Order: sequence, then structure tokens, then C-alpha cells
Amino acid sequence: EILVAVRSSLRKATDLAGRRIIVTAGPTVESIDPVRFISNHSSGLQGYAIASALAARGADVRLVSGPVSLSTPPSVQRINVRTAEEMKAACLEQLPADAAICVAAVSDWRPESVSNRKMKKTADGPPTLMLRENPDILATLSQMAERPTLVVGFAAETDDLRKHAEQKRRRKGCDWLLANDVSKHRFGGHRNQVLFLTETGTEDWPEMNKSALAERLSEQIVAFFQKQG
Amino acid sequence: EILVAVRSSLRKATDLAGRRIIVTAGPTVESIDPVRFISNHSSGLQGYAIASALAARGADVRLVSGPVSLSTPPSVQRINVRTAEEMKAACLEQLPADAAICVAAVSDWRPESVSNRKMKKTADGPPTLMLRENPDILATLSQMAERPTLVVGFAAETDDLRKHAEQKRRRKGCDWLLANDVSKHRFGGHRNQVLFLTETGTEDWPEMNKSALAERLSEQIVAFFQKQG
Repeated sequence: EILVAVRSSLRKATDLAGRRIIVTAGPTVESIDPVRFISNHSSGLQGYAIASALAARGADVRLVSGPVSLSTPPSVQRINVRTAEEMKAACLEQLPADAAICVAAVSDWRPESVSNRKMKKTADGPPTLMLRENPDILATLSQMAERPTLVVGFAAETDDLRKHAEQKRRRKGCDWLLANDVSKHRFGGHRNQVLFLTETGTEDWPEMNKSALAERLSEQIVAFFQKQG
Repeated sequence: EILVAVRSSLRKATDLAGRRIIVTAGPTVESIDPVRFISNHSSGLQGYAIASALAARGADVRLVSGPVSLSTPPSVQRINVRTAEEMKAACLEQLPADAAICVAAVSDWRPESVSNRKMKKTADGPPTLMLRENPDILATLSQMAERPTLVVGFAAETDDLRKHAEQKRRRKGCDWLLANDVSKHRFGGHRNQVLFLTETGTEDWPEMNKSALAERLSEQIVAFFQKQG
């Protein structure tokens, strides 16, 4: 019995050996001026749990991370970034890769222009913040020539979860999408509940710890590459 | 000699006994929608160091804190807030107070309207973010009838430090202002360098650890209340 457990554990440790997997995690931060910024809520917990689970299976994990207060999981190579532009560039530098798991909460928009000086309060009242679109990292990785074999996205939605998630998976061109209703689960918590969408169907995963969700996703990734051969 | 040290330490522990001091720290976070927000860079380190130093001198410290990843210093009563409006309300609830030390990096502006649903990317391009002015907590505390005897502000500037700081101290109506050039010191670092401005003059404090700066400011506060009698 012990032998079986050891064998299983050793097998698990090499399940993804030789596979390079990019994982993005955390928020991006888009400067307005030297003291102000726009960002998204994201603790980085889910992305770091996934990076950790994949590395435990022997994958060569490249964790492209926005600013979070988490330590780097064992055997994971971490690349720190701040903005969506930096995150995209860092991801492209890690190619070619077997898989990309885009967990980061990337700012869809950034200020049109960034002030080098702290903007002063004036009698004219508050400024109007003109925004411009940031690069779509998930769509870029999904649609490029050098596309990783497997591209997985995460989507935070507040309403019409299934509909928005299905549309988003098709629009982005990713293989799988894990969508969660952020109006139900507070940011920074340790539990998560997702819809798991693929081209062929949708699974309603039960609520679980973020590390359990990372394990379950890792198993799916192992199965995917085993089928690929 | 030991006796002298013990006496000095005991005296220090009661220097500010019976004084209620409000300290604000950390950033404020202003929601755009359930996933996006505007904020300021602030680790909370300086404010927490000051709260800690004042509590060590026996003050009844009320630490009104934006979201930071720091633990509450011993003997400090912490009130967690998110927005500038919440921070102002929490400060006013702590009145009457002997002193208020406003270290928080409060957002000067917040979105004019907050969306209850996650704003979707549309073909129309990015939205324009209309901003409105937030309450000025430092000016409010400085100018109100129930004003704490001593009101101290912090100012982060990127240019013309002395000029902007002198104007700001007068405009806000606070007693002292500690101004630092944030183009020189990175946010989240453990060192700080400030100009210390009072009604009667300006001192150029050398660069030091944030805890040393907290000690030095505490000594000034002790001296202030000793003079008051």
C-alpha cells in the first residue's frame, strides 16, 4: 500500500515534466500619476495555487505576477510585472509554451496619458480621466501563430455568469474558461466556485478551496496532455 | 544606571497617558465597479510605525486604516475603512481627541458614479471616468469646531517640495506638516525623508527608517503636550 502511494506520488511529480506552462496572477496596476493608479481586486491566491500545483507535477512554471503579497511557490520561476503591457510582454517572452493559464485580473483600461508629476487639486474641480484599452493578453495568446497548445482563461463576472462566460470563451478563442461570480465570493478569500467551460460543454464545479480548485484544474491539464500523447 | 534606564523607560511609557490620538494610515480605495478601483500607493508602514510609537508612550491610539497587509501594533485600537468617506466618518467618530496624525494617502477623487455590475468592454471603446472630489480629512479636522489640539498632516509631493508643502500647511490649517518627495523614495520602502514644517519654521530631517521617524515625531508630540501643560 505504501509502495502504491509512493509510486503514485512519484508519477504525479513527473506528470507534467518537460511542459512549460505560463501562469499569470494578481492584479495589474495602471498609473494615473506617480501616486495614483487604477487597479483590480486580486489577491493572487488562485493563480499562485495553480502555479504551485503545476510545479508539484513537474511542469516548468513561469509565473507572470502583478504586485501581490505572496511568496513564490517552490520550483516556480516568477516574473514580476506591474502593468498589462508589461504582463503581455513578459508572457510573450516565455513562449514557446505548452500551456498558458491566465488567472491575472488584468485592467481592461489604462489612463490615456500618465502625468510625471502628482496632479494637483485645482479650483477647476476634479479632472476627467480619459481611458484607453489595454492589450487583451488572453485573446492574444489564444489567437497568435505561436499559440500554446492549451490556453485557459479566468473570468470574473457579476451577472449572467453562464451567458457572459460562454460568449467570452468564444470571443477570446481560449480552450477552457473558468468563470466565477464575484458578486458571491469576496475578493481575497480562500474559497472559490467556478463554471468550467470547454468547447464541448460546461461543468458546474462545487465551491472549494483555491488549492483544491488548483488541483482539479491540474488534473484536467494532465489528462489533456495525456490525450495529446 | 539600570535604575535610571528603568525610570526613563517607565516615564516614556506614560508620556502620552490619557491622550487620545487619531492616526490615519494606508491608502483609500474608491470603487469604479465591483472589480475595478482607483487608489494611491501606500504600504501603511509609516502610519503604523507612528501608531506603534505613540501607543508605546501610553497614548490611546485610534488607528483608522485603509486596506494594508500589516498587523495591528500592540495596544492600538484599529478601525478598518476602505473609502475616503468612510475614513472621514471613522475619524469624526473618534472625536474629541487630543491629536490627529493624518498619514493616510487619501484619494483626492473618486468616480462620480459607481457601477453595481462589472462594466463590460464594448465596441464603443473605453469609458470616460468622471471624477468628483473626496472629503479633505486633514482640512476638515484642522478647521472644525471640535478640532484636536494638535493636527499633523503628511504630504507626498513630486516637485517643488518646500513651496508646495508650505502652501499646503497653510491651506489645510494643520499645525505641522511632514512632506516627502515621493519621486526620490520608492513606495513601500522602509526609509523616509521629510521636511518638517510648523508655523514658525521648517526643519530638514535626515533620511531615516520609518520607525526612527515615528520616534522623532512622537518626541515632538510629547514636547508639544508638555508645553501645553
